[in-house]
Amino acid sequence: MFMRVGVIGGGQLARMMIAPAVELGVEIRVLAEQEGMSAALAATAVGDYRDIDTVLAFARDVDVVTFDHEHVPQEVLRAMTAEGISVHPGADALRFAQDKLDMRRRLTELGAPQPDWAAVTNSTELATFLDAHGGRAVVKTARGGYDGKGVRVVDSANGADDWFAALAEDANGGALLVEELVDFTRELAQQVARRPSGQVVAYPLVETVQDGGVCSEVLAPAPGASAALLAEAEALGVAIAEGIGVTGMLAVELFETRDGRILVNELAMRPHNSGHWTQDGAATSQFEQHLRAVLDLPLGATNPTAGNAVMLNILGGPLGQTLESRFDAAMAAEPGVKIHTYGKEPRPGRKVGHVNAAGADAGAILAAARVARDFFA
Amino acid sequence: MFMRVGVIGGGQLARMMIAPAVELGVEIRVLAEQEGMSAALAATAVGDYRDIDTVLAFARDVDVVTFDHEHVPQEVLRAMTAEGISVHPGADALRFAQDKLDMRRRLTELGAPQPDWAAVTNSTELATFLDAHGGRAVVKTARGGYDGKGVRVVDSANGADDWFAALAEDANGGALLVEELVDFTRELAQQVARRPSGQVVAYPLVETVQDGGVCSEVLAPAPGASAALLAEAEALGVAIAEGIGVTGMLAVELFETRDGRILVNELAMRPHNSGHWTQDGAATSQFEQHLRAVLDLPLGATNPTAGNAVMLNILGGPLGQTLESRFDAAMAAEPGVKIHTYGKEPRPGRKVGHVNAAGADAGAILAAARVARDFFA
Repeated sequence: MFMRVGVIGGGQLARMMIAPAVELGVEIRVLAEQEGMSAALAATAVGDYRDIDTVLAFARDVDVVTFDHEHVPQEVLRAMTAEGISVHPGADALRFAQDKLDMRRRLTELGAPQPDWAAVTNSTELATFLDAHGGRAVVKTARGGYDGKGVRVVDSANGADDWFAALAEDANGGALLVEELVDFTRELAQQVARRPSGQVVAYPLVETVQDGGVCSEVLAPAPGASAALLAEAEALGVAIAEGIGVTGMLAVELFETRDGRILVNELAMRPHNSGHWTQDGAATSQFEQHLRAVLDLPLGATNPTAGNAVMLNILGGPLGQTLESRFDAAMAAEPGVKIHTYGKEPRPGRKVGHVNAAGADAGAILAAARVARDFFA
Repeated sequence: MFMRVGVIGGGQLARMMIAPAVELGVEIRVLAEQEGMSAALAATAVGDYRDIDTVLAFARDVDVVTFDHEHVPQEVLRAMTAEGISVHPGADALRFAQDKLDMRRRLTELGAPQPDWAAVTNSTELATFLDAHGGRAVVKTARGGYDGKGVRVVDSANGADDWFAALAEDANGGALLVEELVDFTRELAQQVARRPSGQVVAYPLVETVQDGGVCSEVLAPAPGASAALLAEAEALGVAIAEGIGVTGMLAVELFETRDGRILVNELAMRPHNSGHWTQDGAATSQFEQHLRAVLDLPLGATNPTAGNAVMLNILGGPLGQTLESRFDAAMAAEPGVKIHTYGKEPRPGRKVGHVNAAGADAGAILAAARVARDFFA
């Protein structure tokens, strides 16, 4: 029985693993980037996750290593594995969350539905793609970004010249990813969990409502989704999890197109914002499920306990104040809404917490959650 | 806004406050009796809760003091209050959980239904009570016990002579409590939460199944309870909470008699075993509710989220092994059952954890929970 889990990264995802860890008797240790982060209560070390010695020193004292984020470099991941340390998800799976071109190639091999895409290394290749796709496309850097952003809509062959120039300078470089602009009606997310010995379970498909490129609301299950769509998304999630060999939680971000198809947008290999509703709305929260999966324990039931659930992010928060200063008003107005905080200072656009609500009436819980959320503006 | 809660006592009730504290952003600090207790993750101090200096030093660094148990002496409670420290529940309320004669007297004043009782100081008074109640009765020490036990069924006037003798030696002494033997069909529990500013909310009445004097199973809501019974129990719980001025969670343990009455057996002024089902079965767990109440925050909704819920204690556990050694089998057999551990070593009769299940079908969740629980024998 292995019960010491080390989490690399001290953000809110690590923080939200603490509650189920305590209940299950899992000893959770966090390697935080700095003092005072969201997961500070469980932070047993502070250091740079890019430094092999720092990470190895942390990892040697736990039974399983997992992650708050996907940014641990491949060479650090492989150094742990070389020492016999159990790492979930492993380097071979995480590669597909770290490099968008690797992801697109692998999804193509798996036959997963996705936007038209190409790897492009110069403006001529980009022009060819644009010509074939109505003159507009999305260009993405495969890893990270060169100007703090890694996604750009272009409508000219020269629209990514600065990134092509940077590529040439970059030892990791190679190509940019270009994707068709998808005519989607909404975004969806399919979460699954997979344990090393192979068991996979799926959560119900959810709708993720975006506001300015940031997830603002999640509706579970996805409203109006047909049984066929739910089954298709679940099968896709399971096939991807197995195809890339992920362990732990996997979120498959999807576009639903005007003509009724689903296309894979992104992959996340960790608990994900689209699954925070499970804390108060599913038999097993994604954070408990992630712990169970990385410990290779049998996975928990994923059914929504009250029929429907919603999650609304608290973005920004009350500037210059604390979230707690709004508890009195929000709790008095909506006693059925659950408030989750990340221990972060409010800052414009920052995810500082979320609210959940669950119940039989999807409209009523959404309305209640919005009232509660709005007290934190 | 006061958000640092100090909990005196490091047992499982303190441990189970950690999860909601993390989510709400409440800083929880525990004064544990020793190292390595259930609530060790949040233990910031170790010391004797009967020592005024130890407790004051701990309490000065938090905003609100509350409890894992009811054993903190009145003089220690009053020393905190005298320093202006916010203590919930307060000394005046806790008195009724610490002294069973005080409890009976106050319940009589409040008109609460309870077994016939009397304060007796000698065998002659006990004989009078026995004569009036069919020759048998329950004798209880008002505070703690003289021989490790504080409850005894007697059928002779001399059946408590050793306790009367001890009373005479005891500075705290005074009288024993004698109660009629109630002809009850089952035991029930009514939980309410009350905040200092007065708001009170009630959970649904539950049935508590006892096995050899220890709670083994809790069924929520109490099976077969009429609307009238549910309302009567709720009104009684609210009246007692207000009548004794309790803050935080209150559990009213009840007998249901053969002739359909409910009688108060005991009071507990803290989260209680009869409410562990709320962790996975109610909109607000009793542990979150207790934190909200002692912080004087608006109280949360108490409705069962999935219709019904059950809680089964893990008593004893697998001797010589860990609870975790049984996770694989229990989780594989019952993926919908939630396992909670207390970080304690198995020992005969010891409460080392519990399992919860929630769902629409009361029979099915009880059966599933029993299967899971039995793996921990």
